[in-house]
Amino acid sequence: MMDWNNVLATRSSRMKASEIRELLKLLDQPDIISFAGGIPDPALFPAEAFKDAFSDALTTQASAALQYSVSEGYKPLRDWIAGEMGKIGIPCAAENILITSGSQQALDYLGKLMLSPKDTALVGWPTYLGALGAFNAYEPNYDRLDPKGNRAATDFAAAAEAAGGRVKFAYLSVDFANPTGETLDRAAREAVIDLADEMDIAIIEDAAYQTLRFDGEPIPPILALEIQRKGSIEACRTLYCGSFSKSLAPGLRVGWICAAHEIISRLVLMKQAADLHSSTVNQIVTHKVASTMFEPHVAKLRSTYMARRDHLLAALAREMPEGVDWTRPEGGMFVWVTLPKAMDGADLLAQSLKTERVAFVPGRAFYADGSNGNTLRLSFSCANEPQIDEGMKRLGRLIRANR
Amino acid sequence: MMDWNNVLATRSSRMKASEIRELLKLLDQPDIISFAGGIPDPALFPAEAFKDAFSDALTTQASAALQYSVSEGYKPLRDWIAGEMGKIGIPCAAENILITSGSQQALDYLGKLMLSPKDTALVGWPTYLGALGAFNAYEPNYDRLDPKGNRAATDFAAAAEAAGGRVKFAYLSVDFANPTGETLDRAAREAVIDLADEMDIAIIEDAAYQTLRFDGEPIPPILALEIQRKGSIEACRTLYCGSFSKSLAPGLRVGWICAAHEIISRLVLMKQAADLHSSTVNQIVTHKVASTMFEPHVAKLRSTYMARRDHLLAALAREMPEGVDWTRPEGGMFVWVTLPKAMDGADLLAQSLKTERVAFVPGRAFYADGSNGNTLRLSFSCANEPQIDEGMKRLGRLIRANR
Repeated sequence: MMDWNNVLATRSSRMKASEIRELLKLLDQPDIISFAGGIPDPALFPAEAFKDAFSDALTTQASAALQYSVSEGYKPLRDWIAGEMGKIGIPCAAENILITSGSQQALDYLGKLMLSPKDTALVGWPTYLGALGAFNAYEPNYDRLDPKGNRAATDFAAAAEAAGGRVKFAYLSVDFANPTGETLDRAAREAVIDLADEMDIAIIEDAAYQTLRFDGEPIPPILALEIQRKGSIEACRTLYCGSFSKSLAPGLRVGWICAAHEIISRLVLMKQAADLHSSTVNQIVTHKVASTMFEPHVAKLRSTYMARRDHLLAALAREMPEGVDWTRPEGGMFVWVTLPKAMDGADLLAQSLKTERVAFVPGRAFYADGSNGNTLRLSFSCANEPQIDEGMKRLGRLIRANR
Repeated sequence: MMDWNNVLATRSSRMKASEIRELLKLLDQPDIISFAGGIPDPALFPAEAFKDAFSDALTTQASAALQYSVSEGYKPLRDWIAGEMGKIGIPCAAENILITSGSQQALDYLGKLMLSPKDTALVGWPTYLGALGAFNAYEPNYDRLDPKGNRAATDFAAAAEAAGGRVKFAYLSVDFANPTGETLDRAAREAVIDLADEMDIAIIEDAAYQTLRFDGEPIPPILALEIQRKGSIEACRTLYCGSFSKSLAPGLRVGWICAAHEIISRLVLMKQAADLHSSTVNQIVTHKVASTMFEPHVAKLRSTYMARRDHLLAALAREMPEGVDWTRPEGGMFVWVTLPKAMDGADLLAQSLKTERVAFVPGRAFYADGSNGNTLRLSFSCANEPQIDEGMKRLGRLIRANR
């Protein structure tokens, strides 16, 4: 019998099954009202447009659509994305865009590019669970990034050195972040650039939800603010990660990295060695659908999700007992709930399985140090109004029963 | 200006642009007769079947096809693959199959799973260039695996230890290998299992061309031979990598790893962290096309490619001067040419750009140590008979001019 432990790389010890995912599997039952998912509502997918686009691609350019293609990605799609980047203050060209298999792959590649074992990544507290998962494969340490910048660069650098490596980048989800729903304000974005400039590190800007703003004033991406300071994307240290998963559909796995050409060209080599290229036909089809209907489609998503957010916030106000607090996101899919200190989100979920049958994601896993168990994430993307009303009634009851 | 070198991981120094790929870009011109590609003939893609399957998937199950899906892959496709594995002597179930984005991703994941820096991978001399590319990201050393097993396990182990790590696996492309077109005979496969058992290392069996046998007797996969010895896939150390890129189409990026469930479950976690899952719709469509027309379609590929191989071998016999040797593959896409010792394939290609305008891949890059420059790879997959006749006439002239 093979003892696989004899041949595993040291990094494999960091790849563990998520307790949450195991627990959530149990919650995938019809009588459960779920706010756990964090996935787009499939009823809103532009399915007809995709069907037509696949048919078109396989009629007019089947040989190309089914063949190997270049690692950097389909040129018309990269051109289209570069145009969209320009609209949000990031003037750039196709050579600044690498197509990835979803923005999850972008995070994996950026970790792979920069992290040697014991290096430090600065991340939010909490932060996107999937970013920690992607980076973990490269055996980093994490330090807590407060975007308001109340820790000195020298402090971060000293801590990283004591841990045996160097700070390589700051990772931030900027708009209506997963899991908190919160948006980094302009001053905080500027402060991150100041910090990164002082430390000479990269910035990974995760903009997966960027297009889903319901209200409030749009804030320029970190990369746009950095270009304002430095004149050109080629002089910038920010690596912007975008995705079609929330705006069109996640099942095609199409995302991108937008950055200085110098670093994109390195990432192209990495992608060539890792999976050659992302699906050719999916890139062609994504380009077709995006270039014909992106704006009106995303407008529809925004109005639908906004109504669900409003309904959820109203239900929370009605149903939550005193001592419970939550965020008011201006977009995206998530509300972050803070419970009284002594309560634990994971315990609450385990109880919910037996009694109230309402599902959510306990918050602890979003902290690199596993702290702050008294939190949970609610997603409003797939819930209708009666489900929200009933679900929050049950959640309120569950929390009160635990006080 | 950002100095990216300050934030790169040590592994990034191993990610370099391939000189060959740069050279081949220059050769992508209409008056050049190319045997360089190594890609399937797009005229043979089952384009109509794919078109119908996409249409069907987006009519009958659009919500699932466009949504996130599980990291291990689409269950009906995994079931179908497990059935095919059974037919070639590998009884297994869906839980033994992980869907990857092409078998290139399988190689990347297996390197990531097993290789710590300075560990040793045993590889053929020459071997698949893309395997070296994928493994390089994990900073291994390479040692030369002679499948006939004329080096002792203790010798490999001592060399790996002297290099600062341990031998983790033997990597072999088994049928009509890229680049040589050669097939590992049964005795050699058994010898590799003996060696791996003695050393307690894994075996990566790259079976990308497995379905493209034109003639000769099929030889059981290494994994099948190991199951014969040990009774069950769960007791085996072989990781079998398969692909639809050569049998159906590469542009959808669908491949798989077949192995003991214990190691597949670890790879599922790795994939979850790295890119969540391969394209949902592409897996659904691949299942549909494979389950309705795999055998007759592959039979057509075999007869077409076999005729091209026969024509190429005849042209080589007619046109090559004395002192030139080549392989006689029983399938696949490649013939490997050995030139007189003093000649160099890369020099020859550079000359060809100026004079004969015939393209091929110089052999040196397929050797982990960059040795054996007097070799080149010819692909017959995309060439028609007049191109083969004229191409070999030009190649023969070029070689004679260099003697």
